[in-house]
Amino acid sequence: MGATSVSPLAPAAFPELPAIAGVKLHTATLGIRYKGRPDVFLAELDPGTQVAAVFTTSTTASAAVRWGREALKGGTARAFFVNAGNSVAFTGKAGEKFVADKVETASKALGCDKAEIFTASTGVIGEPTTANRITDAMGDLLANDASWLDAAKAIMTTDTFPKGASATAKINGTTVSISGFAKGSGMIEPNMATMLGFIFTDAAIPHAVLQAVLADCNNRSFNAITVDSDTSTSDTVLLAATGKAGNDAVSGMDDPALTEFKDALEGVLRDLAHQIVRDGEGATKFITVNVTGAVSEKEAKIAAKAIANSPLVKTAIAGEDANWGRIVMAVGKCGVTADPNKLTISIGGIALAKNGERVEDYDETPVEAHIKGQYIDIVADLGFGDGAATVWTCDLTHGYISINADYRS
Amino acid sequence: MGATSVSPLAPAAFPELPAIAGVKLHTATLGIRYKGRPDVFLAELDPGTQVAAVFTTSTTASAAVRWGREALKGGTARAFFVNAGNSVAFTGKAGEKFVADKVETASKALGCDKAEIFTASTGVIGEPTTANRITDAMGDLLANDASWLDAAKAIMTTDTFPKGASATAKINGTTVSISGFAKGSGMIEPNMATMLGFIFTDAAIPHAVLQAVLADCNNRSFNAITVDSDTSTSDTVLLAATGKAGNDAVSGMDDPALTEFKDALEGVLRDLAHQIVRDGEGATKFITVNVTGAVSEKEAKIAAKAIANSPLVKTAIAGEDANWGRIVMAVGKCGVTADPNKLTISIGGIALAKNGERVEDYDETPVEAHIKGQYIDIVADLGFGDGAATVWTCDLTHGYISINADYRS
Repeated sequence: MGATSVSPLAPAAFPELPAIAGVKLHTATLGIRYKGRPDVFLAELDPGTQVAAVFTTSTTASAAVRWGREALKGGTARAFFVNAGNSVAFTGKAGEKFVADKVETASKALGCDKAEIFTASTGVIGEPTTANRITDAMGDLLANDASWLDAAKAIMTTDTFPKGASATAKINGTTVSISGFAKGSGMIEPNMATMLGFIFTDAAIPHAVLQAVLADCNNRSFNAITVDSDTSTSDTVLLAATGKAGNDAVSGMDDPALTEFKDALEGVLRDLAHQIVRDGEGATKFITVNVTGAVSEKEAKIAAKAIANSPLVKTAIAGEDANWGRIVMAVGKCGVTADPNKLTISIGGIALAKNGERVEDYDETPVEAHIKGQYIDIVADLGFGDGAATVWTCDLTHGYISINADYRS
Repeated sequence: MGATSVSPLAPAAFPELPAIAGVKLHTATLGIRYKGRPDVFLAELDPGTQVAAVFTTSTTASAAVRWGREALKGGTARAFFVNAGNSVAFTGKAGEKFVADKVETASKALGCDKAEIFTASTGVIGEPTTANRITDAMGDLLANDASWLDAAKAIMTTDTFPKGASATAKINGTTVSISGFAKGSGMIEPNMATMLGFIFTDAAIPHAVLQAVLADCNNRSFNAITVDSDTSTSDTVLLAATGKAGNDAVSGMDDPALTEFKDALEGVLRDLAHQIVRDGEGATKFITVNVTGAVSEKEAKIAAKAIANSPLVKTAIAGEDANWGRIVMAVGKCGVTADPNKLTISIGGIALAKNGERVEDYDETPVEAHIKGQYIDIVADLGFGDGAATVWTCDLTHGYISINADYRS
């Protein structure tokens, strides 16, 4: 499994996450792929819990994702039921049966509709398996109460640390809490979602509004990170709102009463997304790419992704080399409106190139000091309009090659 | 400079290239960046030589490319004038002057229009320089006759071997010859052209026809390779037709008299493109990706590029791991019409996955034997239509990281 040590960019500790009324966590240690650690988790949700979700846009999405897309139409959830070690993606009818068996068993145990059971699976693609080991353990699983940390650990694959985040916000004067966790390290360029993220709140927000809020916040968090430009077949973010906080009803996505909640939720999603980048396979640097001055927000994001995904930019930063010409190259290749004579490139807040050439009296010393740090800031101003976007990524190192040249073996 | 040894995929020797009547080669050793080796070459072309060219589509293209796009309108060339060690890309007015000085000096020395001088530069982006050292040496350069091998070496940067190819064809009963050379190793996902390629023929083909033939052949050769998904600011392929073979006139791109020539030219371009992949930074495996069954040729090429550019696919092959699930992922992420239940994946001619799941009685042994070799064949059949495309790439290894984490330093 390549990576045995914790990422140098890992947070000091797993954060304290507040309990969410109406949510009970359970884990089990079934040895699906990993030995001696929990590898299955189930979040039991009180009746009436509203759900929102975003999934991978992959056309080869896993059976779990395809089930989730259907189940989401119901708008409520009684369980998130997740395993690590096998993604059950591209396993045909066997994969569909795997998901159906999990859903069937959980819905019977909880006495609810099948459409209220959301599943997710992460691990190797295309390995046939059955759900027996998981469904047979349903009784033990429900009997084993778990902490946020246990649950966050149960979904890890090549992750080197568990990832959690929380926030509180007021809705119409009532304090609500948000707690969530996520996993992801490689095959990360989420497109509508990340590898796996599970968020819980006691806020009372109806499904349709919850879905709109999640989709919006997701665009500036999970959908704004990339480790290696590869989009998973399993990307899933599930958000459960139990309503136990008892806040007054909100009227819709644009209700001002939701402003604070939206900020808090986006903060939690962004924190988790950043933790995935910090655990990017082989990462030694956390890179923030800001593109400004694009003709639109859409073009800004395309350019920011082109910079963040360029193997030459990422290896230059791994080598602590302020090779800004590669940033120029990345902007140029991605097809957005750009002109070398209008382009400004800054690293660590220092402009290196302006108006089509290196700045006069260019002194690399302060830039070199910045690039030897762990947190690298790149700004490319295209000089055309008001379009801006931020994307977060990590460097590309020997560690990435080591982890991925023998992941499955 | 990272790479010190020759790529394990290098051809045994530089090929014998036939001389092309009407073409004289010259090189000079000026120490622009590299010491003790030729770093400038000039191909002197007899009056009336027809020219065709394809350039990078980068919006941050170098001054040399921007000059070439203009000069091409004239349709004739008297010189290809090239330096290695500095790409003069993103160097503003200084870069434009660099190109103008080269063009001015060469046109005076050869007594021709400026628009008949084509330049190209390859090397670091954004490093200011002047053309003085090159223009001052014009007399010595023209006095120093060089071989194909000398010229091929003069344009190398991180290349570990010089790249040449040739062919002959008959046009209306007259034998014509084609000789060419190229360079490239990193920053390779050409988009309309490769890093640098220079092709010469004694065929008599007018500019407009030559241009159409080059653009077409280029799509299935240089435009069908990728090393690292990064598109250079300097990509240029120049094709000179001196007309000295004296073949009868051709009527247009679709003249059957050109069939053999087109095949021969495409063969030369493909051979050179393959040599660039074989010299891909850090490459240890040459990978052929065929996508079939797509709804269109365009979608087939998008899917083939997605597979060929996936860092997870490339590292799996570096690790000699037939991790075909990553091929499924790459097809899924790229947005083309696909459905796991119709997808077939083969490696080394052996189907591993069919109709959405692993083939029954899957035996990895023969696939493992194939993947331990140097030449890897991947086929993804999408099961929808007749669209097909082939893309060539190499694996992603520790060598790529080593070369690029300290290229400029």
